[in-house]
Amino acid sequence: MSSIYLALVHYPVKNRAGDPITTAITNLDIHDLARLSRTYGLAGYCIVTPITAQRELVERVLGHWDTGPGKERLPTRSEALSLVTVAASIQDVVSAIAAQQGQRPRLIATAATSSVDTVSYGEARRQLENTSVPSLILLGTGHGLANSVLEEADQVLAPIQGISDRYNHLSVRTAAAIIIDRLLGDVLPP
Amino acid sequence: MSSIYLALVHYPVKNRAGDPITTAITNLDIHDLARLSRTYGLAGYCIVTPITAQRELVERVLGHWDTGPGKERLPTRSEALSLVTVAASIQDVVSAIAAQQGQRPRLIATAATSSVDTVSYGEARRQLENTSVPSLILLGTGHGLANSVLEEADQVLAPIQGISDRYNHLSVRTAAAIIIDRLLGDVLPP
Repeated sequence: MSSIYLALVHYPVKNRAGDPITTAITNLDIHDLARLSRTYGLAGYCIVTPITAQRELVERVLGHWDTGPGKERLPTRSEALSLVTVAASIQDVVSAIAAQQGQRPRLIATAATSSVDTVSYGEARRQLENTSVPSLILLGTGHGLANSVLEEADQVLAPIQGISDRYNHLSVRTAAAIIIDRLLGDVLPP
Repeated sequence: MSSIYLALVHYPVKNRAGDPITTAITNLDIHDLARLSRTYGLAGYCIVTPITAQRELVERVLGHWDTGPGKERLPTRSEALSLVTVAASIQDVVSAIAAQQGQRPRLIATAATSSVDTVSYGEARRQLENTSVPSLILLGTGHGLANSVLEEADQVLAPIQGISDRYNHLSVRTAAAIIIDRLLGDVLPP
């Protein structure tokens, strides 16, 4: 099993019209995905935004749980948030992982709808089980990762479909949970 | 396949010490679980709180998306939120479903740790596929559903385990997503 990282990307992502935008940090995204990452044993969870003030905001939240009063009040939350880092760009996350692991991670992008070729969860899961190369799963905020990110990724996971492909407007928090569980959770008996 | 409903319970739930409390509504819970419910074709999603002012708060949010400006701005969100109702108690949700479906729903409770017997996701999924009785999945906020709810449920789903049972402090939003996907999503190839 490879070392698996998660990144929540606030730029470059799409707005409703498909144009590139930068979204704002949502505090619950920090907590929910840190707790998810810790539960499923991920190596790290990085919040990506080019806006310095937003990175400082995340650092302030993390400080509350690292050296501030949060740690004593709720140690399990502190344990989850210790996985969180911030970065100005996807490239910076890749460099940080390369420095930590000795090799660059494979980039696994996610999308609710996709115009590029996608890989099934079963196939992606088998690849994760059979490689020692680290992996970085990229999640987009807003209306999803910019097309440039999808095109530069090593693979793009298939969109999550519920009962039909007619409606799949999940929040990034619930989509992340389903993706991580499908890739790393206990497989259902057939 | 039965008609499946989701309820997010704010009372009776546990605090960190295990004592019964009433938690406050979180706006993102309304949205995230409505979008999840719509994506997976649930029959309804009910927010349960005995506090009148909190039910009115939810109704005000829903009004924004039903008759207010939200509907025009983001129709897909409006479509998801049309599944949401509010109720003062679990009993009231059961009665509303019984009135709608002509029979009382089976109660499927969820817990992060459990002292009662639990059912696997595979087994619960097979039961949902092979019954015409409606089902109500109960999710607890705070530190989970009160023991009285677990004891009165027809079944309790197994806790979600990530890589180990050492840490499973998921948010109710991500736990709900994993549970619904395991019960109703596409099964992974073996």
